[in-house]
Amino acid sequence: MGESFGMYKMGFDEEVIKHITSANIACGFHAGDPMWMRHTVDLALRHGVAIGAHPSFPDLNGFGRRNMVVSADEAKNDVTYQVGALQAFTADKKLQHVKPHGAMYNMAVNDESLAQAICESILEIDPDMILVALAGSRWLDIAEDMGLKVAREIFADRALNADGTLVSRSQPGSVIHDTAEVVERSLRMVTEGKATAITGEQIDVQADSLCLHGDTPGAVEMAASLKRELEAADVEILPLARILG
Amino acid sequence: MGESFGMYKMGFDEEVIKHITSANIACGFHAGDPMWMRHTVDLALRHGVAIGAHPSFPDLNGFGRRNMVVSADEAKNDVTYQVGALQAFTADKKLQHVKPHGAMYNMAVNDESLAQAICESILEIDPDMILVALAGSRWLDIAEDMGLKVAREIFADRALNADGTLVSRSQPGSVIHDTAEVVERSLRMVTEGKATAITGEQIDVQADSLCLHGDTPGAVEMAASLKRELEAADVEILPLARILG
Amino acid sequence: MGESFGMYKMGFDEEVIKHITSANIACGFHAGDPMWMRHTVDLALRHGVAIGAHPSFPDLNGFGRRNMVVSADEAKNDVTYQVGALQAFTADKKLQHVKPHGAMYNMAVNDESLAQAICESILEIDPDMILVALAGSRWLDIAEDMGLKVAREIFADRALNADGTLVSRSQPGSVIHDTAEVVERSLRMVTEGKATAITGEQIDVQADSLCLHGDTPGAVEMAASLKRELEAADVEILPLARILG
Amino acid sequence: MGESFGMYKMGFDEEVIKHITSANIACGFHAGDPMWMRHTVDLALRHGVAIGAHPSFPDLNGFGRRNMVVSADEAKNDVTYQVGALQAFTADKKLQHVKPHGAMYNMAVNDESLAQAICESILEIDPDMILVALAGSRWLDIAEDMGLKVAREIFADRALNADGTLVSRSQPGSVIHDTAEVVERSLRMVTEGKATAITGEQIDVQADSLCLHGDTPGAVEMAASLKRELEAADVEILPLARILG
Repeated sequence: MGESFGMYKMGFDEEVIKHITSANIACGFHAGDPMWMRHTVDLALRHGVAIGAHPSFPDLNGFGRRNMVVSADEAKNDVTYQVGALQAFTADKKLQHVKPHGAMYNMAVNDESLAQAICESILEIDPDMILVALAGSRWLDIAEDMGLKVAREIFADRALNADGTLVSRSQPGSVIHDTAEVVERSLRMVTEGKATAITGEQIDVQADSLCLHGDTPGAVEMAASLKRELEAADVEILPLARILG
Repeated sequence: MGESFGMYKMGFDEEVIKHITSANIACGFHAGDPMWMRHTVDLALRHGVAIGAHPSFPDLNGFGRRNMVVSADEAKNDVTYQVGALQAFTADKKLQHVKPHGAMYNMAVNDESLAQAICESILEIDPDMILVALAGSRWLDIAEDMGLKVAREIFADRALNADGTLVSRSQPGSVIHDTAEVVERSLRMVTEGKATAITGEQIDVQADSLCLHGDTPGAVEMAASLKRELEAADVEILPLARILG
Repeated sequence: MGESFGMYKMGFDEEVIKHITSANIACGFHAGDPMWMRHTVDLALRHGVAIGAHPSFPDLNGFGRRNMVVSADEAKNDVTYQVGALQAFTADKKLQHVKPHGAMYNMAVNDESLAQAICESILEIDPDMILVALAGSRWLDIAEDMGLKVAREIFADRALNADGTLVSRSQPGSVIHDTAEVVERSLRMVTEGKATAITGEQIDVQADSLCLHGDTPGAVEMAASLKRELEAADVEILPLARILG
Repeated sequence: MGESFGMYKMGFDEEVIKHITSANIACGFHAGDPMWMRHTVDLALRHGVAIGAHPSFPDLNGFGRRNMVVSADEAKNDVTYQVGALQAFTADKKLQHVKPHGAMYNMAVNDESLAQAICESILEIDPDMILVALAGSRWLDIAEDMGLKVAREIFADRALNADGTLVSRSQPGSVIHDTAEVVERSLRMVTEGKATAITGEQIDVQADSLCLHGDTPGAVEMAASLKRELEAADVEILPLARILG
């Protein structure tokens, strides 16, 4: 959320916010700016949605989606800067969680040094903050070994490889656009702990958090449907801090 | 301090830090970046120097010295962003003070709406933070009316107009380069509460803080001389929080 | 035109382009980026629309609409940089015209030093390029005195003060949203050389170019209506170079 | 050259310029800005030094030295933008050559798609411009196949791997700091076409251009010594266009 910038509006935050319990808010490096951060934090507070930081590599033009080779220290300090900036806009100067964005997230899944640098930043700022990272990834193990609280994340609208990683956005079929399919997949992952990989295998999926993108076409309808169907299946949807509590 | 950026080194922070009690650290909008903020915060901590934020208009290329017409909300949120970012690098996530930089500082002296916006940001983040602003300015009155702690600032090496404001950098004689003159002026302002304006008038000066620039030629020698001469005149130099405490 | 940036889409360029003869293309300082510049130049070439540069102060977050106090040299070099960058994307490495954007345009109307700096840049790069500037402004006189080709610009959807300057965007009524009113005003300015100021006075208006904004709601319909009605009134709409040629 | 930015001064351009025949000037993406581009172009013109563009990935904070995964189109358009911007500051709106900077240069040595994208940009803007690229690299073959003029570049102060590529800056011994060693290596590469790799092998080196860095300590002395010793060895030092002409 909060991925607008200056005059540029992105996403349907005002609608999507009604159907979620935790929001990742952009911090100015891939999207967002101080005005939109204020606006989006206020929106989350009004809707009782828990707030997390969505830090990124410094790449506004590439929307943080381009891989960059930064040092571990650069990554750590970039995260610290962005998390601190967002904290200052909140009512109690605290965030529920941190979920890195785009290329930083994807690279951390496969780069232990980057994964560790991000965890160090979070621990140093506030050890009560939860790291949200890819379910089944080595990154989660690293974080837990360092004493960090973690939430295992799955994606409502992204296809999975057989090893549980996300199919790259550059591949066909990586993003699932059909709402019915997104809802069915999500329900199965949440209630049965199972998913079908893009290659056909059945894989195990253990998760605490289900990620929606606020900027895709149909995002609002998808968020509403998911909430309705999950509740119909007796799934209780809570902010991360209450789940992990 | 901390006005380096990436590969670009500015200032003699490692030397100047030895002679001061409070440091203004750049927050990335006119200078500084996450790596230099970490480095400079650590430097201040090692030397027992109190840390303050030095937020600016977003103008890296102009070093924050170019006047910009931003709305009050933009100024408030820009300050919140930068102060929050710096806080996250400190040991206790707290700053002693906030001193706006360059054009933001100069414009706030004459623009009540901007002055108030900056004060609102500080109060909202942490009402214990001290605003450092120009001695004798309307800005200080506004801040005190809002309930903010303030430190009245004078400048060791800047010439004054007859009304106590700084002579603009665009004017000849605005910056005093002679160390002996800087020291003598500073001693007189601190111990007698008097200064000679650029136009010759004697003016009253009441101050809590004496500002040095870490990037001017001779900055290190000037800082050392000032500290030596002030101490020789039995002036006790303390962090702002202890003076105002 | 070309005011999108990275993932951020702005404007209805693909539609508006069908109804115009000259396009101002953003050059990366307030909007636009190398990918969008390529895309927009190609779009203009395909539609036979003449290309001009739309340089700005360096203020991406403020969309170039915030006044900045830059030196004349800074303004000149900022224009040179942006015009050069855009030229390189064109088929013949030439631009028809230069029209500064937002705050740079508005400030140049009232600041002779800035107006002259912009003209110097244009003359130096290519004296065949046309400066597009506000009809009736002192800026046009300065440009002509310097030997520059100029086009006198009026705005289809902006209210005028009694002295012919634009009513500031911060004032109510500054932008006219009603298509019928925009078309009627525009026809009268073009065919009779008259307009009604926001304060009621009848004023003289001599113009070569009628400016539309590609990003306002209804921009496409407005562009189509204007073209249809102007042609119905036997006004021939040509690229600037052919009008002035 | 021209790698200063705003208030940040980098390099000893005023001295180094006396000892060289071709200059690579930064274009604002890793360093440089419109003021410094003007200043550096004027400096080169006064000294009769031929001018080339030094385009980079958009990474001011990382000085263009961090690998970024940009698409071929992004790279091509980023180069076009920067080359065009620099051209506009020159007297005849032409550049002698283009030499990509830092990570863009290093990645193009091993990435055919990136190498080709850079070549396409150059050909499209001005097929008379020379590409300067690493001696012995596949990139040079690609460029020649596309009909581009090329200059084979060696580095005075960089160690070589056995395959003729540069030893990465992250490795110890990658940059040679001893002036005598730099001069001796350079003389041998130029007059004998031989160099000793960091691993001890003797390798063949065929080059048109010898690169010096203007920002390393001792850069001025190194430039002066190299010029003196090369001339003493009867090597004629000319601008690239005259060598390749």
